[in-house]
Amino acid sequence: MKREGVLYVISAPSGAGKTTICKMIKSHEPELRQSISYTTRAMRAGEEEGVDYHFVTRETFDRMVSEGAFAEWAEVHGNCYGTARATLEEARLAGADILLDIDFQGAAQLRISDVDGVFIFVLPPSLNELRKRLEGRNTESHDVIEQRMTNATEEIAHAAQFDYLVVNDVFDKAVEEVRAIMLAESVRTSRLMSDLPKEFSLK
Amino acid sequence: MKREGVLYVISAPSGAGKTTICKMIKSHEPELRQSISYTTRAMRAGEEEGVDYHFVTRETFDRMVSEGAFAEWAEVHGNCYGTARATLEEARLAGADILLDIDFQGAAQLRISDVDGVFIFVLPPSLNELRKRLEGRNTESHDVIEQRMTNATEEIAHAAQFDYLVVNDVFDKAVEEVRAIMLAESVRTSRLMSDLPKEFSLK
Repeated sequence: MKREGVLYVISAPSGAGKTTICKMIKSHEPELRQSISYTTRAMRAGEEEGVDYHFVTRETFDRMVSEGAFAEWAEVHGNCYGTARATLEEARLAGADILLDIDFQGAAQLRISDVDGVFIFVLPPSLNELRKRLEGRNTESHDVIEQRMTNATEEIAHAAQFDYLVVNDVFDKAVEEVRAIMLAESVRTSRLMSDLPKEFSLK
Repeated sequence: MKREGVLYVISAPSGAGKTTICKMIKSHEPELRQSISYTTRAMRAGEEEGVDYHFVTRETFDRMVSEGAFAEWAEVHGNCYGTARATLEEARLAGADILLDIDFQGAAQLRISDVDGVFIFVLPPSLNELRKRLEGRNTESHDVIEQRMTNATEEIAHAAQFDYLVVNDVFDKAVEEVRAIMLAESVRTSRLMSDLPKEFSLK
């Protein structure tokens, strides 16, 4: 029996640096499989079906929702986005690891679904530092920043749902911690047992 | 509240390379606390009370056993060796991590005790390779090697009791995996929660 793929779910309040961390992880681990989401939004120039997203009609998306085809899904600004159970299941059986960069609500849905995953939450070093980072972007209005701070406080309050907490104070340290989590989980007994030489015949 | 120290228990069949791995880990992590065992054997030249061992009489040792003072203990060639619960508890409360390099029986005793630890088992890449390594030492008789191979097969069969399995095929990779386990466990939510800034007030 081959080792099964592991699903790593990584989430964070907006501004904590999750996306930058994930980009760095993916550059270190090129064999990580991308999870291609389903969406009802229109394809943009340069995008490709099955590469950027699976582009589907609202009708198809709604049918998939009613069939329980999504491990998590959400509607954002009138467009729907979802991660299909089949995508995750197929990767697991193929022995391919996935790093899923996802918002708090999506992670919470995955957590209560029957999907087996390793849940990582990225924290800012402090709320003050998070505010500084959001203001430093110079792209959001005062109201949007206040809303993000409110959301962040609420999300952080529920961080105990996650398996691991990575404080993104020093970027390289945060990346090292996420990579350590992935390496450690890959040698967890429950995952590795099926991949050991037969002669070891573990009970 | 300060983060509690973590107890790492590392075990392996004789010849798998556990002791060399532990030495390398300790050189990378000088802040790891040494667990000083109790023993009834006589102090040797150059040894120091409380540094190499706590040297006690057989009477004291037996009393400690009957009081349940040991998290694990064993009699080897007429001498007793034991790890006191108080040693582990004191390190935990002080926030000091311990790496306990211990035989299979000792690890099994710790596992069924109420001690909270991270259990790592080091495997040889194969039984053939283990035999080669034992024979390569040129220090043990044929009978001793056969006994070690029998023990190894039995111990490996029960490796599923451990949390992590590290296959010592490439030494540097095995060390990297043990270090990753230690870093990952240090940011496990259940351990880190008490060490986060108060303002995060996790529920």
